[in-house]
Amino acid sequence: MVKWFSSSRKRLEVPRLRSRAESESSTKVDLRELTPELLTYLGKAAYLQLIAFENLSAAVATAPSAAAKERISRAASLTLSRQHGLTAEIIRAGGDPGDVMGRYSEVIDAFSDRIAGNDWFETLISCLITAGFIDDFLSRLAEGLPAGAAARVVEILAADSGAAMIAAEISAAIDASPVLSSRLAMWGRRLVGDTMLITRYVLEDPASATDARIEPIFNELIAGHTRRMDALGLTA
Amino acid sequence: MVKWFSSSRKRLEVPRLRSRAESESSTKVDLRELTPELLTYLGKAAYLQLIAFENLSAAVATAPSAAAKERISRAASLTLSRQHGLTAEIIRAGGDPGDVMGRYSEVIDAFSDRIAGNDWFETLISCLITAGFIDDFLSRLAEGLPAGAAARVVEILAADSGAAMIAAEISAAIDASPVLSSRLAMWGRRLVGDTMLITRYVLEDPASATDARIEPIFNELIAGHTRRMDALGLTA
Repeated sequence: MVKWFSSSRKRLEVPRLRSRAESESSTKVDLRELTPELLTYLGKAAYLQLIAFENLSAAVATAPSAAAKERISRAASLTLSRQHGLTAEIIRAGGDPGDVMGRYSEVIDAFSDRIAGNDWFETLISCLITAGFIDDFLSRLAEGLPAGAAARVVEILAADSGAAMIAAEISAAIDASPVLSSRLAMWGRRLVGDTMLITRYVLEDPASATDARIEPIFNELIAGHTRRMDALGLTA
Repeated sequence: MVKWFSSSRKRLEVPRLRSRAESESSTKVDLRELTPELLTYLGKAAYLQLIAFENLSAAVATAPSAAAKERISRAASLTLSRQHGLTAEIIRAGGDPGDVMGRYSEVIDAFSDRIAGNDWFETLISCLITAGFIDDFLSRLAEGLPAGAAARVVEILAADSGAAMIAAEISAAIDASPVLSSRLAMWGRRLVGDTMLITRYVLEDPASATDARIEPIFNELIAGHTRRMDALGLTA
């Protein structure tokens, strides 16, 4: 099981006043030393996409209307396409997708349980917020993979994941019922800790993530998180 | 809500001794008189594919291994492609997919609740058995749509739905645990009644389905059901 690193609590603070340009220029870090071995990376990344699909599917199943189901099913389909791209890379690297992903399923399933929302709105926030954070991290980390795989994986992760559709769905829900805001803001903040833990887990040696090399990356990821929350009008 | 037609109970008997050739030659019926108006057909058909996707997603979520999740996610993706093909037809016919599907969601959601299995194995049987029956029916009924739409819809429904993958998954589960057979056979038989009701619902006027025109079609569909159950080694 993933353990919570008590020393990392302080880092969970969100740098609210940082602009996008500022955070990007000050935190560009070479993740290559931290990137795990190819199949390890692909197994964890593909399984994370699979649980992102499961979360979206849960949002399809609990959607309040046929129209909402229809829209979210598009995002689910896009996420699954990305997942299939990653499993194709596992096969290309000589691995069996089920076996390779299966090594990491217990920890990632536990994460998935923790981020499952209590209702449709929370589930949508989870879909947007955790997948956004994880995808940012996986994209950055992919730069450290062997050259050919790196380019292909970066391309797979750059493909549309349907995040804009999910964000539009949440915004419409908040517009229709502004009282949702504070609850969803709280839920969004709660997700950050678990999401940071699972990104550490993607690293070959999560303990190495406590060192100074990883901190700027998390600042960058949290800045991305803050932008996503801001775009919904929610306080990160 | 859909009502159970008490007069139809007798027709639920499965014609076990009928061969494929025999049933097809004796039951070829023109469904054109029964086919509903285009948008009605498309709304019901698209929403039925959407709940087929939801059932497959539930099977992904509850699958016992990463490998099984991976395999079933392929079937889910294929089913969603078919659903998207049908919603594209709704748009082409001037309808809004959410609105058009939404007219029929209450009845179809109630069906979906009734066929949800109690565990992964039952869910898989539901995915295979109800979708197989419904797809056979929708394909037959599509012949009665306006010419251009008919050809396109028949092609959409002829595309792979992943049924062979689901069947392989169930067969492997039964091989690994033969004691499952009788429970799954019972579950498969239980599904037939609800599935027949929902196919009647697809018709513009379900009451018309009680007349003699529909009976040969159901014999044909039940023969298809029996073949699917037989292929799994289960008594229909």
